[in-house]
Amino acid sequence: MEIKRPYLLFLGDAPDQLAAKTAFGIVDWRPQWCIGQLRLDGCKADVGLSDKSIEEAVAAGAKTLVVGIVNAGGQFPDHWTKNLVKALEAGLDVATGLHIRLRDLPGVAQAAAANGRQLHDLRFSDRKFATGQGAKRQGLRLLTVGTDCSVGKKYTTLAIEKEMSARGLNADFRATGQTGILISGRGVSIDAVVSDFIAGAAEWITPENDPDHWDVVEGQGSLFHPSFAGVTLGLLHGSQPDAFVVCHEPTRKTMRNVSHPIPSIEEVIERTILEGRLTNPNIRCVGLSIFSQAYEDQQAREYIDHLGSKFNLPATDPIRYGSGPIVDEIQRQFPAKANS
Amino acid sequence: MEIKRPYLLFLGDAPDQLAAKTAFGIVDWRPQWCIGQLRLDGCKADVGLSDKSIEEAVAAGAKTLVVGIVNAGGQFPDHWTKNLVKALEAGLDVATGLHIRLRDLPGVAQAAAANGRQLHDLRFSDRKFATGQGAKRQGLRLLTVGTDCSVGKKYTTLAIEKEMSARGLNADFRATGQTGILISGRGVSIDAVVSDFIAGAAEWITPENDPDHWDVVEGQGSLFHPSFAGVTLGLLHGSQPDAFVVCHEPTRKTMRNVSHPIPSIEEVIERTILEGRLTNPNIRCVGLSIFSQAYEDQQAREYIDHLGSKFNLPATDPIRYGSGPIVDEIQRQFPAKANS
Repeated sequence: MEIKRPYLLFLGDAPDQLAAKTAFGIVDWRPQWCIGQLRLDGCKADVGLSDKSIEEAVAAGAKTLVVGIVNAGGQFPDHWTKNLVKALEAGLDVATGLHIRLRDLPGVAQAAAANGRQLHDLRFSDRKFATGQGAKRQGLRLLTVGTDCSVGKKYTTLAIEKEMSARGLNADFRATGQTGILISGRGVSIDAVVSDFIAGAAEWITPENDPDHWDVVEGQGSLFHPSFAGVTLGLLHGSQPDAFVVCHEPTRKTMRNVSHPIPSIEEVIERTILEGRLTNPNIRCVGLSIFSQAYEDQQAREYIDHLGSKFNLPATDPIRYGSGPIVDEIQRQFPAKANS
Repeated sequence: MEIKRPYLLFLGDAPDQLAAKTAFGIVDWRPQWCIGQLRLDGCKADVGLSDKSIEEAVAAGAKTLVVGIVNAGGQFPDHWTKNLVKALEAGLDVATGLHIRLRDLPGVAQAAAANGRQLHDLRFSDRKFATGQGAKRQGLRLLTVGTDCSVGKKYTTLAIEKEMSARGLNADFRATGQTGILISGRGVSIDAVVSDFIAGAAEWITPENDPDHWDVVEGQGSLFHPSFAGVTLGLLHGSQPDAFVVCHEPTRKTMRNVSHPIPSIEEVIERTILEGRLTNPNIRCVGLSIFSQAYEDQQAREYIDHLGSKFNLPATDPIRYGSGPIVDEIQRQFPAKANS
């Protein structure tokens, strides 16, 4: 289940930097796991790692070739596939978070079998889970929730885990999406699980642990998104958070890919507490994380300070200002355990 | 996708009547689709159809052998499998709602391929759905919801559809579970869908329709069940009901298979409206369906009348008293359309 590291990041002939978003995410959060980048002729992306051939990467100790780019139009080009086969033959595992099955690409399943290598299709979940039990488990859990999809939940979760770990707290990032899994080395794409087992998979991701241990869980979707609220609710019930952080992007007018309005932060706090109490009666909001890229510095600072006062909660943009204020609040609200 | 009929119901060597629950459900609601029952030596179940061999059933026009029994312990015995293969060779399709894949049983995939027959694994969903859009679709929709799992949602849905059709209303039962699919001939096991597509699958089940048409949708789980609430919420959002009916069993103390208390009917009404408004602002409760088997006649009547007064809603046990009071309410609340 665990993806072996270090990684060689495959950038193919990505047409621009944006196409290598997954690779950038990995390099941002786990540079120490990345041994190099593999770029083909014409590649316009560069994540700042040293260029390595498959042979050079294997010699340097690489264990997994990670596809770090998006495949425009859903097709996976043959000249990319050839590199995957070559990597498998050289002794690397292969991992991708794309909407493809590696075994369906020509020659890949055979090369993996012949060389005893693992294929990681992170958007698919073949693992069997139990249905959720809803019983309280030992340990502490934090979940990020959002006013919408794509409002910084993954980034916020990683930033909080990093800050908690830097302060010596006992914390693990728990991935629920494909890029998060590559950053964590393990996890479950919760939206790929059969729906009967959403809560059960979330329980599996956040098992019983030490009393002072924090699972810092990557949220998905929004309770107010008509496409994905079921996933969000199952993840909330299964991860039974003690604490949650609301993520918000202030300039968006409608929810992603649908015409529904963005809910208010108040609504998200209230609904998350209302629904979350089913599996954790002590659930509480410990902060607001604002994705303020659209604002100039002063406007961002004023807006975030305004929200902090209005809700009497720490508010920050973890990209601009770090996640310190939220971790301060966690340590205030969970003192004995958080400081143990 | 549609399961061809008439059906030959396979009862195997079921040890008792309860083991043939699926077959009884089909015979209760669609006797006209059932051409006979196939019972092996030692079968203790009898659903009241004429006994027919595979050859006799084919001669009488049967199109699908439906496995109408549960397989104790999850095993599917070889002597059952032999009959499935024989049925495929005789020209029948095969359908099952069990936790098995027909193609994994020895000889079944080959016999289906060799004879050009369909295999229907109703607990699995290989169909690709779009993600939910949340846009209002023309037509009317009713959903059953519950204080728990297994409180009569399927029975209530079928009873309401039957009564509406008997009154000449334009209504279709929409199945979301395996027995319901056998009764309807089509549908989707919503809890077998990949969780990203719960709402999308529910939209697919209840597409745009005539303004006076009712989709009468089989509910699943409960918004208050820690294992399955995500499925329930996605089904609620995707089916965007105009009307819902709360199903309740009055003697249960904790939710099925977990230790959580049963929510009150008030809570279920409030939460269903709160969450359902996301995709249908006009959602309303039109009745209570009480599974009163545990009560004597007088106690049942008093309890149900008490609830009806308390909530000012029609309350009935559709098994004991029919679904008429609820359909009366539907016709009162949706007069122009329901009576068109």
